[in-house]
Amino acid sequence: MTQETTQVSHDGPAEVRARATGPTAGLAPGYTQANLIAVPRDLAYDMLLFAQRNPKPCPVLDVSDPGSPRTVLAPDADLRTDVPRYRVWRDGTLVDEPTDATPHWRDDLVAFLIGCSFTFEAALVAAGVPLRHGRNVPMYVTNRECRPAGRLHGPMVVSLRMIPESLVDTAIRVTALMPAVHGSPVHVGDPGALGIADLATPDFGDAPVAEPGDVPVFWACGVTPQAVLMASRPPFAITHAPGHMFVTDVEDSEYQLLSQR
Amino acid sequence: MTQETTQVSHDGPAEVRARATGPTAGLAPGYTQANLIAVPRDLAYDMLLFAQRNPKPCPVLDVSDPGSPRTVLAPDADLRTDVPRYRVWRDGTLVDEPTDATPHWRDDLVAFLIGCSFTFEAALVAAGVPLRHGRNVPMYVTNRECRPAGRLHGPMVVSLRMIPESLVDTAIRVTALMPAVHGSPVHVGDPGALGIADLATPDFGDAPVAEPGDVPVFWACGVTPQAVLMASRPPFAITHAPGHMFVTDVEDSEYQLLSQR
Repeated sequence: MTQETTQVSHDGPAEVRARATGPTAGLAPGYTQANLIAVPRDLAYDMLLFAQRNPKPCPVLDVSDPGSPRTVLAPDADLRTDVPRYRVWRDGTLVDEPTDATPHWRDDLVAFLIGCSFTFEAALVAAGVPLRHGRNVPMYVTNRECRPAGRLHGPMVVSLRMIPESLVDTAIRVTALMPAVHGSPVHVGDPGALGIADLATPDFGDAPVAEPGDVPVFWACGVTPQAVLMASRPPFAITHAPGHMFVTDVEDSEYQLLSQR
Repeated sequence: MTQETTQVSHDGPAEVRARATGPTAGLAPGYTQANLIAVPRDLAYDMLLFAQRNPKPCPVLDVSDPGSPRTVLAPDADLRTDVPRYRVWRDGTLVDEPTDATPHWRDDLVAFLIGCSFTFEAALVAAGVPLRHGRNVPMYVTNRECRPAGRLHGPMVVSLRMIPESLVDTAIRVTALMPAVHGSPVHVGDPGALGIADLATPDFGDAPVAEPGDVPVFWACGVTPQAVLMASRPPFAITHAPGHMFVTDVEDSEYQLLSQR
């Protein structure tokens, strides 16, 4: 369904927003990518409250004014066109996956940009933690219910990274310092504790790759709002397609608590 | 206007909520205290968005359901009665300072509990940073406008601590790890950069106490929502009276990013 593009790695965020039509992992390195969920103003309070009550899966980086396709995270961007691929939801059902959301946009839509684990992956690599997965990290719907807010409820989605046991503490410490992009892991070890029966068959993304001595480490994931749409079935929403993120003009280091000095 | 009580220091949060009628600094040590602002449901989206856009002055710890005086931060508490002293605001003007808000409470009120710098003060002391101020920290209205949200706008309020120059880096590092309670300072040094003409005459709290070699260090302050009420003049709101905080059942260490493991 998606069309891969070969991007030269020195493309900046504006170039990626203008040209990318496939997954954005690895593009515009050093710049923060974000999950998108846009809902009608009528549902925006519930969405914002849901995010406040579930900050690990839903760390809000910016919220647009109603109807506006603008964000402070990339002042020249247009949220209706600058995500490589969108998903359009009606009553909790996926009805379209366009590359341009303009025909679906409404004057009362409020766009939420939510932190993405791509941002902390660069910090993990810089700290010597190897990343095993390929283009798309494995993601799983868990048996943990998020704290509901108004009409919104649903399970937490997590992303998995297989990490050498000796580096798990490092991975926890590095990501704890980045609460705006999911923060520290929600679980380390037995996938069964999250209701995950089989690591080999993720609900989204690619299958995991492990080496001997690796431990499964799970972080809350920005795909959670899409699971919430499926569970709560609000009348209308637009999101990014998984892996096809909004690339911002903000450097990853902005979201590292101790790197700002 | 306020009546001081002498609390024995081993009172727990429930005892303080039941008995305190004066400022809460130093009471129920180890437990997080919170700023309160309750607004009608009609204004709650603007308030929550304002907090999201201004996370340093307004880090939200919990939001009640409309009309409910309950919070997950202290399940047995009643937000209408368990703050030692309230402020009632009409059209941005302070109209009452009762010890019981029940007669003013409305079925559509949404209560926001916002992090307080008392929480990071214990961490500063534990890290060897001396606190000079007395019962109430000095607070100043600055010339920095918060990022507006809907009908809400206003200046940022800061709290000041005078800190020995050699310990400023420690103070920054310790508080950066506590983003839920204002995080790292917003400014170090010259008060004029924040539009503060005279440190000796704070807008709220006590005058500062300094020793030779001290540097002024400013943190965003949870009194900011009250400055926003005065500037934006919404029809109705209830807040705590400055210094008279809501004492939660949550331990301070819960809000320290690297202490949770």
